[in-house]
Amino acid sequence: MKPFNIALIGCGTVGGGVAKIISEIGTTLSKRSSRSIKIKKIVELNPLVAMERFGISKDSFCGGGKELTKDESIGYIDEILKDPEIDLVVETIGGTSDFVLNLCVDACKSGKHLVTANKALLAERGKAIFKAAEETNVSVGFEAAVCGAIPIIKTIKESFTGDEIVSVSGILNGTSNYILSRMFDDNLGFDEALKLAQDAGYAEADPTLDISGGDAAHKLILLIKLAFGIDISMEQLNYQGIQNISPTDMEYAREIDARFKLICFAKHENGYIYGGVCPMMVKNENLLSGVGGATNAVRTINKYSGKHILIGAGAGSSETASSVVADILFIARYNDIMNKILPTGNMTFEGLTQFKLPYAITFETEDRPGITGLVTTEIGKQNVNIYTVTHNRHISDKALFSIETQSCTREQIDAAITEIKSKGVLKTDPKVYPILF
Amino acid sequence: MKPFNIALIGCGTVGGGVAKIISEIGTTLSKRSSRSIKIKKIVELNPLVAMERFGISKDSFCGGGKELTKDESIGYIDEILKDPEIDLVVETIGGTSDFVLNLCVDACKSGKHLVTANKALLAERGKAIFKAAEETNVSVGFEAAVCGAIPIIKTIKESFTGDEIVSVSGILNGTSNYILSRMFDDNLGFDEALKLAQDAGYAEADPTLDISGGDAAHKLILLIKLAFGIDISMEQLNYQGIQNISPTDMEYAREIDARFKLICFAKHENGYIYGGVCPMMVKNENLLSGVGGATNAVRTINKYSGKHILIGAGAGSSETASSVVADILFIARYNDIMNKILPTGNMTFEGLTQFKLPYAITFETEDRPGITGLVTTEIGKQNVNIYTVTHNRHISDKALFSIETQSCTREQIDAAITEIKSKGVLKTDPKVYPILF
Repeated sequence: MKPFNIALIGCGTVGGGVAKIISEIGTTLSKRSSRSIKIKKIVELNPLVAMERFGISKDSFCGGGKELTKDESIGYIDEILKDPEIDLVVETIGGTSDFVLNLCVDACKSGKHLVTANKALLAERGKAIFKAAEETNVSVGFEAAVCGAIPIIKTIKESFTGDEIVSVSGILNGTSNYILSRMFDDNLGFDEALKLAQDAGYAEADPTLDISGGDAAHKLILLIKLAFGIDISMEQLNYQGIQNISPTDMEYAREIDARFKLICFAKHENGYIYGGVCPMMVKNENLLSGVGGATNAVRTINKYSGKHILIGAGAGSSETASSVVADILFIARYNDIMNKILPTGNMTFEGLTQFKLPYAITFETEDRPGITGLVTTEIGKQNVNIYTVTHNRHISDKALFSIETQSCTREQIDAAITEIKSKGVLKTDPKVYPILF
Repeated sequence: MKPFNIALIGCGTVGGGVAKIISEIGTTLSKRSSRSIKIKKIVELNPLVAMERFGISKDSFCGGGKELTKDESIGYIDEILKDPEIDLVVETIGGTSDFVLNLCVDACKSGKHLVTANKALLAERGKAIFKAAEETNVSVGFEAAVCGAIPIIKTIKESFTGDEIVSVSGILNGTSNYILSRMFDDNLGFDEALKLAQDAGYAEADPTLDISGGDAAHKLILLIKLAFGIDISMEQLNYQGIQNISPTDMEYAREIDARFKLICFAKHENGYIYGGVCPMMVKNENLLSGVGGATNAVRTINKYSGKHILIGAGAGSSETASSVVADILFIARYNDIMNKILPTGNMTFEGLTQFKLPYAITFETEDRPGITGLVTTEIGKQNVNIYTVTHNRHISDKALFSIETQSCTREQIDAAITEIKSKGVLKTDPKVYPILF
């Protein structure tokens, strides 16, 4: 059978990893796919870095290994899209620019299969890409876009096909999980832990997308599309980050046998998909609680097969690249069909405000007798059952404590807080965290 | 496209679950596979039980729902294998009899795809089935044969294709994991915990296959075939069960922050596959330690993507059936190829005797000063470093303690034990358990 020819557009962390794996185990890969897998062309503005880091020969690069201007790279991409011998384009440039979007759409329109690790692009502007792919009957592989090495996309698309997904939740951002793990295990503040994450290479110089929950939100949007067949936008999805979690909050979590995790959550109930991204106190009886460091984990609960958890590396060059290569092989072997089975659902998306969860509310109040009674009474008035009140910490002129409720809506919690605030006993706004069992 | 027609041979726990899922979500399944999925015929000796338990109509059964003699069932099976409209046969009879083997081989020879949950048959006599399937170019789906609902087969065959598996380990038998969990969490003896497992429906009246490690060994043989491409027999694989673990052993595990798990283990090193099944003390820092009850878990360490863990239900009617249905859909959609990518390796299989692992050795000795020195000295003489000695328990006339070593071979441990035994200070034979980090 004729070789399966690939063009790599972008040869940074992920793209370089792809080139490295294909050069190192190419023979095995060709055997697995029953045809030779070849990288025919690489387009990269700065090939020198990639050549050095990944040991790629200069002849693989368009331009023979010299730096390219943007215009030159556009010329080479045009050639690739017109080259009938190229079967598949790997986009590993990243970002959500018109340039990258058009590249992906044009690749599909030219009849090339597309593999990408670009979660932001697919989550925010993916519709145009999937539409183009459908028109020309090519595949869009994006295993690497959600949780790097964890094969959650293929698992949903090929292994949970004899089932129906009821809920999907998980730790989808390694950077924030690393920061939370350091804060919990080493009693650090957020800023110190962020610094450690940056020093260890887990966090970017500008860590906003990771710590704000934005990156996790991109991945949840893709999982919701796959699991439930609905498209939601970043505007529809309420996401919160981890910036406001304090060492005291960590202590509260410890007291109720839980750990803080930035949790992505979506659940199907009666035609609605309830979902959101926020820090939750995950009880230690839930295995997600034990997933530390930069590791990612996805948990689904399925109608027939019950609970599944997949744990693995969420990022990294060769880790993410291995998923890109698996997509390439699947497409080389089965040729197309991958996106034909994207489900289409008609469920309505809702945030988590109306969804019942147990909550932990942390209070900073005046330090005088009667406050706990006042607070718990107001919570009870909203028909919310209280499960525990943590040990009060009486520190100089204030008292700190946390209340663990049974399942209720965020709306009920907010109503109680409004009442409590009106009594004038609070030093600061209470913080509210869902609890995950 | 024409419907994809299935014949179910055997309609017990798993087969009945398959019929139930297809009847309940058939429309969704047909949409996912772009063709209608139909159970055309069911052969079952006692249809009444299946009709009642799974709500299957009598018309689905060969013979219209009446009990069948063995001869009658053979006649119906012959008809099915000759029926050109049947695309796929699901074998859910179980066991390793010639009858079941021949049925599977004949199904493949008749050009029918085969899906089975029969781990014992595939592990002990699978070669003939895979050979027949290769000759007629049909698929053999066996996702349900290893860890029920956990999609480990598809993950290895379709998701780890851009990678190389270095090691695979896991908790592959739910019954023994349930027993070990009860012993550890509730301080029960083995017999009491086994009784609980039987009462809860996790253990058969004759639990031998589960508690002896035999069932886990069947699954490990299949995982080794998939991950490393070599065929090994039950005779080659050393497997031990959990029958001899005592409450005292459980205490030793607790003292070194570990839990007992029946672990299947295989690792590729320098052209050798080292593997075996035995109870290990799994350190709590390893997530497998937290996998309790009847849950299964598989951990792989891959060359490029690092550590992966998959956790889920290892047994159960609808849980296992969901994997059978996923295999059916995959075959309906992609038609064949599934077994073409079974790897072929030329590694040599070795047991764990020569493989370096840390060990825990539990001793029951005379109760007099000097024994710990004698024992540890002999271990040191074999060039084995000691990591910890647990608190000595001095009970009437004997002392109980456990020693945690650093990595060494089982041969070194056995040599030390031989020397120690020759000193005449041991009350019983020491027990030796590998430690898994």
